[in-house]
Amino acid sequence: MKDFEIDWERKGRTGIAEAIFCEHKSVSQIASILDFSDGRAMLFTRLSPDKLRALPERQQTLIDYDAESRTAFSGQVAAPTRKGIGVVCAGTSDVPVAKEVVRCLQFNGYDAPLIADVGVAGLWRLMRRLEDIRRFDVVIALAGMEGALFSVLAGLLSAPVIAVPVSVGYGVAAGGHAALSSALASCAPGLTTVNIDNGFGGACAAIKMMQIGSNAHFSQG
Amino acid sequence: MKDFEIDWERKGRTGIAEAIFCEHKSVSQIASILDFSDGRAMLFTRLSPDKLRALPERQQTLIDYDAESRTAFSGQVAAPTRKGIGVVCAGTSDVPVAKEVVRCLQFNGYDAPLIADVGVAGLWRLMRRLEDIRRFDVVIALAGMEGALFSVLAGLLSAPVIAVPVSVGYGVAAGGHAALSSALASCAPGLTTVNIDNGFGGACAAIKMMQIGSNAHFSQG
Amino acid sequence: MKDFEIDWERKGRTGIAEAIFCEHKSVSQIASILDFSDGRAMLFTRLSPDKLRALPERQQTLIDYDAESRTAFSGQVAAPTRKGIGVVCAGTSDVPVAKEVVRCLQFNGYDAPLIADVGVAGLWRLMRRLEDIRRFDVVIALAGMEGALFSVLAGLLSAPVIAVPVSVGYGVAAGGHAALSSALASCAPGLTTVNIDNGFGGACAAIKMMQIGSNAHFSQG
Amino acid sequence: MKDFEIDWERKGRTGIAEAIFCEHKSVSQIASILDFSDGRAMLFTRLSPDKLRALPERQQTLIDYDAESRTAFSGQVAAPTRKGIGVVCAGTSDVPVAKEVVRCLQFNGYDAPLIADVGVAGLWRLMRRLEDIRRFDVVIALAGMEGALFSVLAGLLSAPVIAVPVSVGYGVAAGGHAALSSALASCAPGLTTVNIDNGFGGACAAIKMMQIGSNAHFSQG
Amino acid sequence: MKDFEIDWERKGRTGIAEAIFCEHKSVSQIASILDFSDGRAMLFTRLSPDKLRALPERQQTLIDYDAESRTAFSGQVAAPTRKGIGVVCAGTSDVPVAKEVVRCLQFNGYDAPLIADVGVAGLWRLMRRLEDIRRFDVVIALAGMEGALFSVLAGLLSAPVIAVPVSVGYGVAAGGHAALSSALASCAPGLTTVNIDNGFGGACAAIKMMQIGSNAHFSQG
Amino acid sequence: MKDFEIDWERKGRTGIAEAIFCEHKSVSQIASILDFSDGRAMLFTRLSPDKLRALPERQQTLIDYDAESRTAFSGQVAAPTRKGIGVVCAGTSDVPVAKEVVRCLQFNGYDAPLIADVGVAGLWRLMRRLEDIRRFDVVIALAGMEGALFSVLAGLLSAPVIAVPVSVGYGVAAGGHAALSSALASCAPGLTTVNIDNGFGGACAAIKMMQIGSNAHFSQG
Amino acid sequence: MKDFEIDWERKGRTGIAEAIFCEHKSVSQIASILDFSDGRAMLFTRLSPDKLRALPERQQTLIDYDAESRTAFSGQVAAPTRKGIGVVCAGTSDVPVAKEVVRCLQFNGYDAPLIADVGVAGLWRLMRRLEDIRRFDVVIALAGMEGALFSVLAGLLSAPVIAVPVSVGYGVAAGGHAALSSALASCAPGLTTVNIDNGFGGACAAIKMMQIGSNAHFSQG
Amino acid sequence: MKDFEIDWERKGRTGIAEAIFCEHKSVSQIASILDFSDGRAMLFTRLSPDKLRALPERQQTLIDYDAESRTAFSGQVAAPTRKGIGVVCAGTSDVPVAKEVVRCLQFNGYDAPLIADVGVAGLWRLMRRLEDIRRFDVVIALAGMEGALFSVLAGLLSAPVIAVPVSVGYGVAAGGHAALSSALASCAPGLTTVNIDNGFGGACAAIKMMQIGSNAHFSQG
Repeated sequence: MKDFEIDWERKGRTGIAEAIFCEHKSVSQIASILDFSDGRAMLFTRLSPDKLRALPERQQTLIDYDAESRTAFSGQVAAPTRKGIGVVCAGTSDVPVAKEVVRCLQFNGYDAPLIADVGVAGLWRLMRRLEDIRRFDVVIALAGMEGALFSVLAGLLSAPVIAVPVSVGYGVAAGGHAALSSALASCAPGLTTVNIDNGFGGACAAIKMMQIGSNAHFSQG
Repeated sequence: MKDFEIDWERKGRTGIAEAIFCEHKSVSQIASILDFSDGRAMLFTRLSPDKLRALPERQQTLIDYDAESRTAFSGQVAAPTRKGIGVVCAGTSDVPVAKEVVRCLQFNGYDAPLIADVGVAGLWRLMRRLEDIRRFDVVIALAGMEGALFSVLAGLLSAPVIAVPVSVGYGVAAGGHAALSSALASCAPGLTTVNIDNGFGGACAAIKMMQIGSNAHFSQG
Repeated sequence: MKDFEIDWERKGRTGIAEAIFCEHKSVSQIASILDFSDGRAMLFTRLSPDKLRALPERQQTLIDYDAESRTAFSGQVAAPTRKGIGVVCAGTSDVPVAKEVVRCLQFNGYDAPLIADVGVAGLWRLMRRLEDIRRFDVVIALAGMEGALFSVLAGLLSAPVIAVPVSVGYGVAAGGHAALSSALASCAPGLTTVNIDNGFGGACAAIKMMQIGSNAHFSQG
Repeated sequence: MKDFEIDWERKGRTGIAEAIFCEHKSVSQIASILDFSDGRAMLFTRLSPDKLRALPERQQTLIDYDAESRTAFSGQVAAPTRKGIGVVCAGTSDVPVAKEVVRCLQFNGYDAPLIADVGVAGLWRLMRRLEDIRRFDVVIALAGMEGALFSVLAGLLSAPVIAVPVSVGYGVAAGGHAALSSALASCAPGLTTVNIDNGFGGACAAIKMMQIGSNAHFSQG
Repeated sequence: MKDFEIDWERKGRTGIAEAIFCEHKSVSQIASILDFSDGRAMLFTRLSPDKLRALPERQQTLIDYDAESRTAFSGQVAAPTRKGIGVVCAGTSDVPVAKEVVRCLQFNGYDAPLIADVGVAGLWRLMRRLEDIRRFDVVIALAGMEGALFSVLAGLLSAPVIAVPVSVGYGVAAGGHAALSSALASCAPGLTTVNIDNGFGGACAAIKMMQIGSNAHFSQG
Repeated sequence: MKDFEIDWERKGRTGIAEAIFCEHKSVSQIASILDFSDGRAMLFTRLSPDKLRALPERQQTLIDYDAESRTAFSGQVAAPTRKGIGVVCAGTSDVPVAKEVVRCLQFNGYDAPLIADVGVAGLWRLMRRLEDIRRFDVVIALAGMEGALFSVLAGLLSAPVIAVPVSVGYGVAAGGHAALSSALASCAPGLTTVNIDNGFGGACAAIKMMQIGSNAHFSQG
Repeated sequence: MKDFEIDWERKGRTGIAEAIFCEHKSVSQIASILDFSDGRAMLFTRLSPDKLRALPERQQTLIDYDAESRTAFSGQVAAPTRKGIGVVCAGTSDVPVAKEVVRCLQFNGYDAPLIADVGVAGLWRLMRRLEDIRRFDVVIALAGMEGALFSVLAGLLSAPVIAVPVSVGYGVAAGGHAALSSALASCAPGLTTVNIDNGFGGACAAIKMMQIGSNAHFSQG
Repeated sequence: MKDFEIDWERKGRTGIAEAIFCEHKSVSQIASILDFSDGRAMLFTRLSPDKLRALPERQQTLIDYDAESRTAFSGQVAAPTRKGIGVVCAGTSDVPVAKEVVRCLQFNGYDAPLIADVGVAGLWRLMRRLEDIRRFDVVIALAGMEGALFSVLAGLLSAPVIAVPVSVGYGVAAGGHAALSSALASCAPGLTTVNIDNGFGGACAAIKMMQIGSNAHFSQG
């Protein structure tokens, strides 16, 4: 009995290839999927260093792993060349999720700069980078704690802003729920949100936005 | 002492004109804002029939009011001509918020069709309309109860899908929180969400997405 | 049996006179307290117009009532003359609670200006007023929705900032909980918070701060 | 003092034998229960590999343990022969709980196939298996994340569908609460649900449904 | 533009006809659906007396309305003849939802007795009726407050028990959440649950269970 | 079909007569119960003035109704003579629930004094009454807002203290949940609590405690 | 600087000696308190085996430690002789907290039997022990999961029942909140509750109840 | 790419130097910040002993680390000389957060005494220290569990009281939420609060209050 069913058609249907979310999968499930992929390019998210090390050695050598973002690429992944998406994060602690965003974009062909530690408690840090940020077609913003960056940023930009709340904080901010509420309750219109720590989802949303107007076709339902 | 400060620059800065959210404003505050607007086009959301009727009569005659969506336009609003955005809702009860979306899009120049009552408890209803839905560049989806429509739709489309959870339901669905959780926790990558019942926000996000690639410039910060 | 026990010593003990919170009190309880006060100056908060009108007529004429803030003064209240406290609110919908702050300060001798509708979705509105705001010794900030104003303001000022979250909003912001979480989880150090819609409490905290260094003595415990 | 009281009459009374839920029991409690059972067939759930290894060796050899589902059978358990129940799960990560369902059914005489990884983000996967699923008399469905599978499935089947929400997910889906809400708030009528991760309960409910019409008698109250 | 899409195929597909949930629908939407139904038998739930009276008079006379359960039948509904389902409720306050269950069963051909006010605070009341309750093939149990009835009942019966938590209570029981938690967390295996106050859903689940073994066929997907 | 089942045996079994909780019962249900009681003494709680006035006039004249506590006695109720229970409440707003306690005690033969408005924000008010309070065998304490009275009182008394949290407050205190948490989380050992606003339950618990050592016998199970 | 202040007067004042709650205290804080106690009898709760082993060896030998209940006695503790309190728990998993109750009672002179595993999913287990349970003056009941035992027991006894919800369970029962809600929302009047897992508090409440009528005097405030 | 952006201007702008919150930062991020600081005085909070030991040895020797408060000073920090701020905590378990307060004050030049274990369950402990506490200009109060200390203290003092809820407790007090609610819902006016366990924030707020009236100037925005 095979426990999984790869949705190879997803890229044709939605413009974005399926990725393997490893957090709740066992090492043996991940190893089976890798075997089954048979060299095709595949993205793995939330792959902890411990699980990586528990994979068969031959599999470990075949994948391009980044420990900070806990992402891996298997198969041949071309160097990213597309531009237009920017990643902005409020604090140093948000960087691991921000790098998950960057890596997921790379896997899908986008080379996105990361502008870090521009939280609004020191507003000059954001203002100093504002002209750079305004050049992006789509901005993915990450923040934990109270997530005030989302509203300030969305009030300053004409580009769509995608909020990725981050589970950084303690007390009422523990788990990222305060940042999520800030993103959803924002006064700045046009801001949209994904789940807490969902760097992969933020990247996919940005790619779908960049594809508007292109000829993406649905192949099978 | 004037209680308000209209952000006339918002359109130049973010591509979307400020709107007046009337739910927590008093009738006298709304009347003052209308006077102050001095004939410029302005959008009012969550304007209840009761508050409308409490406005001075001369103001009532000057505005284009729609009771189902609780929206009003003041000033000259051109007929909408732009295409590309579609609005899809799961049930008949979601229609008032869906019409808030449609009216906010109209105010901003977009003529968006509404495809209603295609919830997944009767999947054939959605499947029958799928080819129509696939033609949109951006889809705004509305659902209350458990919000399963969001995931099914996002898994079938290459266009960005913006989820607007609706406060339709009872028990654990009361207030729209179950639908919101479904949108945020969705397995279908690339789905983004706005606050519960935030039809205005969903429309703004779609407009920002449609503007990608256009020459929107920031005027003042 | 008398249902109440006025804490006349509170002013001597804590520097702030007791106030009567009317929201959960019956009209007959409020009338008894007014009778018992016997002309001494007393502050009533959350006194709805309906309850006011249900009081005996002779009592209605003796009190100075403000409908927007739902506050009343009984007895002789001197015109406020002290300076140093400023009140800043994010949106027009926050004004009723902001005016509760202003009236509670007036009752205690402080003449505090209100700077309204400077929310961060249009950052220029705040920036334009920043020099004025910096002149206050203590700032009371009010915001509903996502409450991003709290962090931005506290990051820009050396004065203590007291956050009063306001129950303005809907969906995840309903009840003011998102704004409260933002205030508590703020990255900007030195911000403190009171309960949602607690304009009276915000005013009291500011007064206690202004009294630092004065010779307030405790009379009885 | 004996800490436990085996409800041997439960099978006679309710049609389902008592099982030992090991998660909050100590190793010595589990060992005592095993000794006391004296070779009678007994089902153990949530028995972690660590606790298994901490049992006296003679006990370990007497039980049939499955690590993935964390279930054990003691005593003589006949090979399952009854048909009619199907188990369907949305993702690979749901498989451990799905296998708890399968094992609990086996212990009670039902041989139930598991159809895995048919989540609705790739609807074709479910549609491809739909004819197989329609042959079951009762369907137990498992899903984590947003749990959209429950509504889609219940809308397509005439068989009763029992939802088992699974604690797979993060952010708002952490702990399985989003999937649980989806099951409860479902628009598809006739869906019932059990507690998060309660594979045992889902199996018991299915068995009780399969016994409808049989001559189950109550023995003692 | 028609706001609704009747799922006439639902009965063929799932064994249960679609019903119209009226709570969030406007009077004009309900009237349109009635017109559209054109005399076919249709079930309406959560139809308040106010909405009923606001319907066109000719429509009011055509429907069989029950105020206590807030349900209506339009078209020809045969007298119920099938047996096997029992409805049991803990307190007098649960009766309106219990009668929603009874009416939904009647619409679908089942004649189900209601055994009321047998809550476990006076256990003898339940015990006195136990032999009657044991004769049912399926039991639908309703309780508010702490919902202890669910566990006691499920521990005594071999029939499947479907819990319908009821929003009767105050403090921690307000909204029915305590009763829902009790149903989900029950120690008695085989209990399943539907949403709070979902009498219709409880009835549908029971009907699906009674159909097990019959030749229900799927007509269209 | 009778919707109710009076537990006349409760007094013999538990020492406290059943009472009729009217909040979720319809006027016709209450009237039926009154008819059925046939002159026997019976206690009704949460009976609103509106429901009272909707009862048949002959029933209204037979009952002893107290509007502030929303309680009614039907039948012959002897004047209370037993001592030993004291009722203490923190604020004037808690008085209606405190009077529900007093009335329920009266119905059961206890004459309990009410000491009101001794909240700890003005500690001298409590201290002034402390010697009186120490004379009670059992103390029922009521508080809303943050409920600090519970801990202070339980730390000062050797008598058992029963906390009745009251739904007085706003923001985080709305609904009485902050006061409930304070009672449960109290550092002062030996404090027990009942549900929010459950004055009846607090009275019953005190009576059960006063009966310790008496010869209460169980009559039927 | 000494971090602690032993409340030696507590026993004189409230009838119950202070105990040291060790869960959030460091080993060095616990060791200091032990040194400071200087041989006087003292009760320690939530003392983990790890912390015990980290204490200085001479201290370890001086205390009477019970690992299952995580309690320790220091100093001379007389053998318990008083009767009247009974401890009843629903499941085997509740035993550790039940034993915390028993040990706290022993420290205070009460010898209380524990009746274990009488949960209501198998009602006969409770009924078989009912006559024994009815002999107690005060009953402390412990249950996790859905906590249905509390209501059933309180409905059958004239003695006061103190509910101690236990953090046994998963999904909606995780952390003991479902059991707590059941205790608070119980239909059975006269039940009171302490915090989740608060065995010590349950024991203290029972002792205070047993002291009613005795001459406990307050020594100092 | 540098992940951080030190806000050196914060002290000039807000009167308080930026501090490095280490809880969610990696060891390599902390080491980079230390290198970048280049000997300037800097405060680190929530620096666990494990992370400290993982830093390069040369960095470990340069910093003044306190394990109990998990704080570190790098660079030259002058001995504190300013007076006026007092720190008061309810229990021994609150001491680690209280010491974070003390250390943060020391870093900023304030020498603040800590008065520990004066919780209100033994009111005499607080009363004995009251005269000392009344001498402070600003009081920072810390409490976990039910946080009753906040209200009692704020009702007795004319100085501003800043509540720091502490995550000490279990059951409903777990995570510090009960103490936080008590602080926010307090009846004692003028109390303000910061996030749970936010000792640093409490210290910063006190410093801002002490600076009122001094010539703090804003340097850059």
